[in-house]
Amino acid sequence: MKTISENKCFGGVQGVYSHASEVCGCDMTFGLFLPREAAEEPVPVLWYLSGLTCTHENAMIKAGAQAWAADHAVALVFPDTSPRGEGVADDAAYDLGQGAGFYVNATEAPWAAHYRMWDYVAEELPALVTATFAIDDERQSITGHSMGGHGALTLAMRLPGRFRSVSAFAPIASPTASDWGRKQFAAYLGKDEAAWAAHDASLLMRRLGFDGPVLVDQGSKDQFLDLLKPEALAHAMMERRQNGQVRMQPGYDHSYFFVSTFMADHVAFHAEALYRD
Amino acid sequence: MKTISENKCFGGVQGVYSHASEVCGCDMTFGLFLPREAAEEPVPVLWYLSGLTCTHENAMIKAGAQAWAADHAVALVFPDTSPRGEGVADDAAYDLGQGAGFYVNATEAPWAAHYRMWDYVAEELPALVTATFAIDDERQSITGHSMGGHGALTLAMRLPGRFRSVSAFAPIASPTASDWGRKQFAAYLGKDEAAWAAHDASLLMRRLGFDGPVLVDQGSKDQFLDLLKPEALAHAMMERRQNGQVRMQPGYDHSYFFVSTFMADHVAFHAEALYRD
Repeated sequence: MKTISENKCFGGVQGVYSHASEVCGCDMTFGLFLPREAAEEPVPVLWYLSGLTCTHENAMIKAGAQAWAADHAVALVFPDTSPRGEGVADDAAYDLGQGAGFYVNATEAPWAAHYRMWDYVAEELPALVTATFAIDDERQSITGHSMGGHGALTLAMRLPGRFRSVSAFAPIASPTASDWGRKQFAAYLGKDEAAWAAHDASLLMRRLGFDGPVLVDQGSKDQFLDLLKPEALAHAMMERRQNGQVRMQPGYDHSYFFVSTFMADHVAFHAEALYRD
Repeated sequence: MKTISENKCFGGVQGVYSHASEVCGCDMTFGLFLPREAAEEPVPVLWYLSGLTCTHENAMIKAGAQAWAADHAVALVFPDTSPRGEGVADDAAYDLGQGAGFYVNATEAPWAAHYRMWDYVAEELPALVTATFAIDDERQSITGHSMGGHGALTLAMRLPGRFRSVSAFAPIASPTASDWGRKQFAAYLGKDEAAWAAHDASLLMRRLGFDGPVLVDQGSKDQFLDLLKPEALAHAMMERRQNGQVRMQPGYDHSYFFVSTFMADHVAFHAEALYRD
């Protein structure tokens, strides 16, 4: 593991690190915020999964999460959104290939060789950060934005016991019914739609639900709202009687100005779950 | 108008009054809480519509709303849920007839003579209370529980400009698709289902929406959840991009213990709308 940078931030440290990923078969970079309390003892952690076109850096510099994470003594991890580098397949479109891993393990050529973001975020990176840093792996929660909201919700539901709470900002809530999803799942997972259902938050909510609280925020002026389908997730949450809430925030769009506005709420929501005994 | 009782309460006055209702063709009783500030100037008002079997009294004594209404300087009105008395049609079932007006104007025999709760709550009672008490009719919001949540949502959407905010506790959210609704609408409004749509919050949300914030709370252990259909309302709210939130509260049932738990949130939510300029 290589330290790219470390900056003091809200009394703690915002670091950027890279490592050779066995899972992805390339070097991967991630951001990690450790609050000052991590110098004394392991702290709980909130995973933040980013959206299309993002690297580890976007949320780290634009989501305004460190202020609240410092207040609540919570670490933040910002993984990248795909494998990268020479020899890693890519596509000219912004929504396929590098920057658009969709948090799945690709089974189809040319993606299968490197695009294993599910295993990377679910297994390899957690093992690395909890072994290396003062992070309490018994107290983890997860959030994300857009494609990352999709990732957060699907990981949370399919890894029961791993996360104490899950939230999402404008998640891709029903990718099997959206052009943000169908195209990518066909490319990464193949034409058999049966394999897609394990990566659709609304379908998983119907089938599995989540054993903890769920918070979803969505802006009403989101330019991609028709692709996100919060109505499918809201319906599934209520039908399941899922502990949770869905909020339509009037006037907000899909940007980090939306994310940063509600970040305090989300970090406080997770902190309550992470510090509850 | 006759004063039945007046009690000092949280620095203000909790009154109960009766009056001869022209609309309902019988005497009607209502509860009114006026905070101390009403002695000086007109205050904003929050309407609370009650559920099946209730009179004006249940919420007045069990919802715990006066504490928060006093904090926020908001008046509360607690109307009855149906016409009552000798000569008013009734039914042996708890969910039809007296105590079960469903906030509609009945058109069918034997109900049409007295069961005009829509007009009573939308017109006659507001005119009476704003003419008689220190209430600012420019600042009104509305809430309710169960059948009253249905009433609050449908009144709010069909009277645009009247209410600044609307909330509901475990509302009957899609009565045209529920045994809490189909039976009563058939009795009060007749077999033609076209007339029912104007009294279904989920259908109205799709068609009209609400020009202000919406808050809905639902308990996950509500014994009547299958009759309430919050999933239909949540879907419609998200599909419309309605300013608002729907919260599934884990472990709560349909009782006033649920209502009172979240009453502080609801009164604060309305106070923000009522005191915003």
